Amino acid sequence: MTKAEKYIRYLIPVSLFSTSRTKEILNINPVANVNRKDAEKIFITVYDYDEASLTEHTFTNIEDCFGFKENKHISWINIDGLRRKEVELISEKFEIHPLIAEDITSMGQRPKMDEVDNILYCLLNMLYYNENTQTVEVEQVSIVLGNGFVITFQEDPSKDVFNPIREKLKMANSKLRQRGADYLSYSMIDLIVDNYFYVMEKLGDRIEQLEEEVIRFSNKRSLARINQLRKEMIVLKRNIAPVRDLIGSIIRSENSLLEESTTKYFKDVQDHIMQAYDLSENYRDIMISMQDLYINNVNLRMNEVMKVMAVVTCLLAPATVIGGIFGMNFDVIPTMHNQWGFYTAVFLMLAIPAGMLIMFKKRGWF
Amino acid sequence: MTKAEKYIRYLIPVSLFSTSRTKEILNINPVANVNRKDAEKIFITVYDYDEASLTEHTFTNIEDCFGFKENKHISWINIDGLRRKEVELISEKFEIHPLIAEDITSMGQRPKMDEVDNILYCLLNMLYYNENTQTVEVEQVSIVLGNGFVITFQEDPSKDVFNPIREKLKMANSKLRQRGADYLSYSMIDLIVDNYFYVMEKLGDRIEQLEEEVIRFSNKRSLARINQLRKEMIVLKRNIAPVRDLIGSIIRSENSLLEESTTKYFKDVQDHIMQAYDLSENYRDIMISMQDLYINNVNLRMNEVMKVMAVVTCLLAPATVIGGIFGMNFDVIPTMHNQWGFYTAVFLMLAIPAGMLIMFKKRGWF
Amino acid sequence: MTKAEKYIRYLIPVSLFSTSRTKEILNINPVANVNRKDAEKIFITVYDYDEASLTEHTFTNIEDCFGFKENKHISWINIDGLRRKEVELISEKFEIHPLIAEDITSMGQRPKMDEVDNILYCLLNMLYYNENTQTVEVEQVSIVLGNGFVITFQEDPSKDVFNPIREKLKMANSKLRQRGADYLSYSMIDLIVDNYFYVMEKLGDRIEQLEEEVIRFSNKRSLARINQLRKEMIVLKRNIAPVRDLIGSIIRSENSLLEESTTKYFKDVQDHIMQAYDLSENYRDIMISMQDLYINNVNLRMNEVMKVMAVVTCLLAPATVIGGIFGMNFDVIPTMHNQWGFYTAVFLMLAIPAGMLIMFKKRGWF
Amino acid sequence: MTKAEKYIRYLIPVSLFSTSRTKEILNINPVANVNRKDAEKIFITVYDYDEASLTEHTFTNIEDCFGFKENKHISWINIDGLRRKEVELISEKFEIHPLIAEDITSMGQRPKMDEVDNILYCLLNMLYYNENTQTVEVEQVSIVLGNGFVITFQEDPSKDVFNPIREKLKMANSKLRQRGADYLSYSMIDLIVDNYFYVMEKLGDRIEQLEEEVIRFSNKRSLARINQLRKEMIVLKRNIAPVRDLIGSIIRSENSLLEESTTKYFKDVQDHIMQAYDLSENYRDIMISMQDLYINNVNLRMNEVMKVMAVVTCLLAPATVIGGIFGMNFDVIPTMHNQWGFYTAVFLMLAIPAGMLIMFKKRGWF
Amino acid sequence: MTKAEKYIRYLIPVSLFSTSRTKEILNINPVANVNRKDAEKIFITVYDYDEASLTEHTFTNIEDCFGFKENKHISWINIDGLRRKEVELISEKFEIHPLIAEDITSMGQRPKMDEVDNILYCLLNMLYYNENTQTVEVEQVSIVLGNGFVITFQEDPSKDVFNPIREKLKMANSKLRQRGADYLSYSMIDLIVDNYFYVMEKLGDRIEQLEEEVIRFSNKRSLARINQLRKEMIVLKRNIAPVRDLIGSIIRSENSLLEESTTKYFKDVQDHIMQAYDLSENYRDIMISMQDLYINNVNLRMNEVMKVMAVVTCLLAPATVIGGIFGMNFDVIPTMHNQWGFYTAVFLMLAIPAGMLIMFKKRGWF
Repeated sequence: MTKAEKYIRYLIPVSLFSTSRTKEILNINPVANVNRKDAEKIFITVYDYDEASLTEHTFTNIEDCFGFKENKHISWINIDGLRRKEVELISEKFEIHPLIAEDITSMGQRPKMDEVDNILYCLLNMLYYNENTQTVEVEQVSIVLGNGFVITFQEDPSKDVFNPIREKLKMANSKLRQRGADYLSYSMIDLIVDNYFYVMEKLGDRIEQLEEEVIRFSNKRSLARINQLRKEMIVLKRNIAPVRDLIGSIIRSENSLLEESTTKYFKDVQDHIMQAYDLSENYRDIMISMQDLYINNVNLRMNEVMKVMAVVTCLLAPATVIGGIFGMNFDVIPTMHNQWGFYTAVFLMLAIPAGMLIMFKKRGWF
Repeated sequence: MTKAEKYIRYLIPVSLFSTSRTKEILNINPVANVNRKDAEKIFITVYDYDEASLTEHTFTNIEDCFGFKENKHISWINIDGLRRKEVELISEKFEIHPLIAEDITSMGQRPKMDEVDNILYCLLNMLYYNENTQTVEVEQVSIVLGNGFVITFQEDPSKDVFNPIREKLKMANSKLRQRGADYLSYSMIDLIVDNYFYVMEKLGDRIEQLEEEVIRFSNKRSLARINQLRKEMIVLKRNIAPVRDLIGSIIRSENSLLEESTTKYFKDVQDHIMQAYDLSENYRDIMISMQDLYINNVNLRMNEVMKVMAVVTCLLAPATVIGGIFGMNFDVIPTMHNQWGFYTAVFLMLAIPAGMLIMFKKRGWF
Repeated sequence: MTKAEKYIRYLIPVSLFSTSRTKEILNINPVANVNRKDAEKIFITVYDYDEASLTEHTFTNIEDCFGFKENKHISWINIDGLRRKEVELISEKFEIHPLIAEDITSMGQRPKMDEVDNILYCLLNMLYYNENTQTVEVEQVSIVLGNGFVITFQEDPSKDVFNPIREKLKMANSKLRQRGADYLSYSMIDLIVDNYFYVMEKLGDRIEQLEEEVIRFSNKRSLARINQLRKEMIVLKRNIAPVRDLIGSIIRSENSLLEESTTKYFKDVQDHIMQAYDLSENYRDIMISMQDLYINNVNLRMNEVMKVMAVVTCLLAPATVIGGIFGMNFDVIPTMHNQWGFYTAVFLMLAIPAGMLIMFKKRGWF
Repeated sequence: MTKAEKYIRYLIPVSLFSTSRTKEILNINPVANVNRKDAEKIFITVYDYDEASLTEHTFTNIEDCFGFKENKHISWINIDGLRRKEVELISEKFEIHPLIAEDITSMGQRPKMDEVDNILYCLLNMLYYNENTQTVEVEQVSIVLGNGFVITFQEDPSKDVFNPIREKLKMANSKLRQRGADYLSYSMIDLIVDNYFYVMEKLGDRIEQLEEEVIRFSNKRSLARINQLRKEMIVLKRNIAPVRDLIGSIIRSENSLLEESTTKYFKDVQDHIMQAYDLSENYRDIMISMQDLYINNVNLRMNEVMKVMAVVTCLLAPATVIGGIFGMNFDVIPTMHNQWGFYTAVFLMLAIPAGMLIMFKKRGWF
Repeated sequence: MTKAEKYIRYLIPVSLFSTSRTKEILNINPVANVNRKDAEKIFITVYDYDEASLTEHTFTNIEDCFGFKENKHISWINIDGLRRKEVELISEKFEIHPLIAEDITSMGQRPKMDEVDNILYCLLNMLYYNENTQTVEVEQVSIVLGNGFVITFQEDPSKDVFNPIREKLKMANSKLRQRGADYLSYSMIDLIVDNYFYVMEKLGDRIEQLEEEVIRFSNKRSLARINQLRKEMIVLKRNIAPVRDLIGSIIRSENSLLEESTTKYFKDVQDHIMQAYDLSENYRDIMISMQDLYINNVNLRMNEVMKVMAVVTCLLAPATVIGGIFGMNFDVIPTMHNQWGFYTAVFLMLAIPAGMLIMFKKRGWF
């Protein structure tokens, strides 16, 4: 490693600015679902329930769950892992429009809601905060609500979002069991939205740490960190903002799949998503005023240093001049042969800067 | 304490930037009402009144107020202190939807209004300005309007918001006594909104003080203080902005709980909340132009100092050169043996800087 | 006065930044009408007119004008000076809703329009530009339009806004005389809105002066002045912006008090208020680009000075070095005994800076 | 001219910042039409046409064109030069509402459209780019569409906007001849809107020149020029923005004066005005990023110069010290009597700065 | 090339800032279609198909495709290269309104949609990213949907946009073959919109490269590149933003040309265009924070250098003074005859700066 490289490295910790993160955030192409690699494995779980009973099934073969389409129970088919073929098969069986099937396997989609042919489709992104990389991670979740069934698709088989719902389902007297498939969808969306606050809390902690750092040290890493955090804010907002429309559309929808009594639950979610959005705006404001503070701090400290240097240089200049005066080689220099000449000169060399210093101090310059 | 620490402490008064305040402002999670600790005690007061009579009761047991549900008077049940169990009990009795009961015990909620099953629910935040910490404090107030009753829930048993209403209630000929429960709710919301102006007045005083400080001293604390105030503005705006929608919803509502003649009172509140919002925008504008002013002032003063230093250093440079010239050890230096040589040289050392000074002054550089 | 104080005073003309003005602008509390001090005197003038006749009356007792409520002429009752008691009396008599009566005596109200019980109420602020204090002054004007009468309330008995209308009223063939009370109200609102342009003209002149100053001198007062002007802009905009809604509401209103043929006159006022608003936005833009210009000018001038100082210091450094070289006390220094040694050294001391100067000039650095 | 003045003049070319232009832009008062001076002369031309025939008349007396009101042809009466009396006479004859007559003679009006009593009135501003003063000039054009006639009023008799329309009218088979008066109005508005693009092209050329200048020289004039151009942008936008509403109103209007088949032509104009507006926004964006670039360039160059100065001063400081060391008058200074002492010292004076220079270069500081 | 030129060239790489690009972006005049040069050649291809059969024709003479207007198949006539005469001929034959014909041959049009006389017309811009010039290139595409036919016009005969559609058409069982002309139009618009993401990916790569560069080198070219990229963003946004309205209009349209079942496909395109728009906003945000980062980096590095210089100069000043002290020619200078005097003086010259350095380090200034 050359010196120049070392210096740059010292100036800005490159590792912090992962430009590859920029690439991840910017290179969104929702139309290129050919890019998606099929999951190696898929896990299918089916909860078939009504108020009275609940049965749980686990399959690996997609055809096994076809039977749940037209039974009288509410069936929740959850598919962990996305494979194009399976999505197409189940879409055909459950009469899900091919456009929706395409959306399910797409990547980087904006959250959205669609109503086609008595199917209500919601695509949302579950957010996770990765403590190691300090990034907001995204998992696409598709919720398909049909007559008497809900099918959910999750990208990553290793993470499962819906555990709290499973637990509630197992309680016979829970509201989930007493109400229809629309309430099940509501619970899922509610769970995802509530999770946004958890991610924002983590980001809020990070902002607080960063503010502490900016106030105490304001070192060169701080701006890099602010910058990185601003990118995560973009990810956050990109996923929260469209959910407002999504839920608004559900509330306004007059689809027979949604019972009227469920609407008030969605209104509750709407309140939360509105607040999440407002909060993300507040985060942005605080980030910006933190950046102002950082720049101001760096300037203040720099100015302080420069001022000291300038003052020292300036104070010593008269001494140099006096030294010059009595260092001249003229034959006739007064006081040259005086015994106290030298001491007088040195005294002047000290007294003039001291006088200047006092004056500067008085004027509040130093 | 090391020197470095001392320096930093000097540069920015850390105590001013309470990053913990940032945490308080950012870590809002309305869905995590499990976080709320039940109040140790609750105080229940009931005002049961009509035009002719008024009775006042104080209970500590929630069941005691159940009797007021279906009497013919207007009943105002005020509950100071929030406890999950009590909220649930009273909600069940007064047929308040469980979602609303959940909102009542939630924390950090955005102000909102809900109409469910012939109950009109308003959640607002009462604002207080804490002179000690110079922060805007928030107390969540829930107002539940039903047929012939109003139930209010307040977080903090030590503070009571509704005293002025109590006093008016005690006057037999007051409007409050002559009108219905909807007018009582209006009075409460009006009281809360009017209080916003009081808080803003306090913040306005603080802005004025800060402006005075920025103009006179512009010291390093000023930016910290501006920064802190900007955070309080966020708290202010976050609580005011949604109230506009809330009151708009009440006005547009065609709920039979609200008499038509009460609408014009809510329109009056709407005017006030609109003005409070506009005012909060004005505050923001003034804060921003104050920050511009601060930065400009700091720069001007810094520049002034640096200019003086640079000018002094620059003025003394020619004298140094002259000293150098006549300090050279050549055998043949003209004027060296001249009696007035030294005086001429020293004169030049003074005259050249003086000439430069005059020129600089003329050009307006100094 | 200490030196430090003198310096600060020199740096920023404190008198210019009247922070008390900030207080005036910020401490708006429309709900605190208890703050209003009753006027010492009130002046009541009544114009009672129809197409054929006009009678003018002056009273000091409010009851004297009660008779004009139900005559067949159009009656304009103008009350200069606000006193709570009188406002309440007349409101009761003319069946003006108590809420409106409260608004009339309130302070710092946002312009607004209300329709209650066959009364149309407009609250506007007349603006004046005070040349001495260079501030925008506000006088609250209330216009109450009823069936066959208009009652106006003005805050300040010493100023009277409606003189031009009086003069037109006295002309028998004027439109005012031929049309109803709604046209009279229109004329008043039109007069107030037209006056905004006059105030803006004054502010425009001030902006122009300031721009001239910024371009020519850019001294330390300029930013203070820009800052002050930005505050006046806030006052201006705060009073203009809500009038747009006010007039829009009048136009959309289907109140029987407003004849359809008057609507087009209000549309004309709407065009003007829209333009006033746009213009106030333009003012803001010009103010901002003026501030940019100021900061840039100050920096340019500072840079220019610093550059000259740095160049002079830098040019003289080689001369100092040469002086140092030949001032060393070595026994063997070449050219030391040469007759032209000194001259050569001095020549070098001049030639090197001169050469550097030429090079700097060529590179466009100086 | 004093030196100080010269300096300021050098710093900022005052002539460029015509503050009088600011005055022109700011002092808009649409309600003060008393300010308008009557034109000295007016020119009246009438085109009376139908599909089969066209007659052209020129009058100087306003009464001469009264006969065209009720003939069966389409009559276009164009009046160059505004005189209050004539406008009132023709308005009375053609039943144009007095409010519109007032607007015609007003100054500085915002573009607007009015429908009163079966008259459709449009006020637009024709824009010209004055190459000499580099300003956008405005001429107010009024178009009055009535049943079977169009009356146009132009401010400046020396400029005529509508020549292209005259030429098309003379062609018997042109669409203008085959269609009604509404199509004639459309052609006029279309002509004016199309002209905006021409003015914007000129401004675009100027922006390009300025950008070239900013990139190549970034001298002190550049910011003045950017500032001036930003003011012209305000004029541009102020005239374009309201035209969007104007044309929108025409399209939504259900006035019988407008045939349905003409609507699609107005939609075409709407597309153009939308694009003109978007383009004006783009101009603003480019201006802002140009200003950023300018400030950055000035800073970069300043920094470059200061850095060189600081480096030179810093490099020569060690040489000064060495000179000082061996210039001391101690009796015992080693190497003082050495033959190579002087050369060694001078070598050090050169070698140390050279070494520092190499180090600085390596670190990329220079 | 003079030195000055060289310097400027060094400071800013002129070639990067192609101001001619600014001209291209700014000089948009959609009404000046006289500027368009007729294409030298045009290529006409016709696909005539229904579910069962597909025939492909290539013509060079426009009249040859007139026969396809009223056959029972769906006919897609694609015309590469725009020539005024041919556009007019085909417009007349296919009953396309002259205004649309004009739009087809216009230049620099804003994307738009028109419905006239049972023709639905869409004008979009196909975007390409030119890797060589690093600019976004635009090709205007017109899609005319009539009853049973689609006519497309492309500007540049050398590029063909619609190849993927041709390939799908050739597949007998493709949806394109099974559905009507409206689905064909949808496919075309979908193809164009999907392509925007491809262009944005390229721009995203460029932003990432630039960010890498800003972080690692922050040289003078970086700002030029950021500036250039910001201009390309303007081109991007200008073409994406109006497409939102365009597709919204299609969805809301109740034109009989559009089957209801096609609407959901357009809704899918709408989702994509919304996301493309959001993404373009994200790009802008990242560009702005990149510019902040650049400016901060340049300042940090500059400050670092200036600080080192100031520190070195300042550290050497005491040594100069000491040298001056003992270089004075007084008869009586203590220690002058002392053997260790010189060494003591030199030691002080080293010790004082060293002491200062340690102090500076401790305070964190260096």
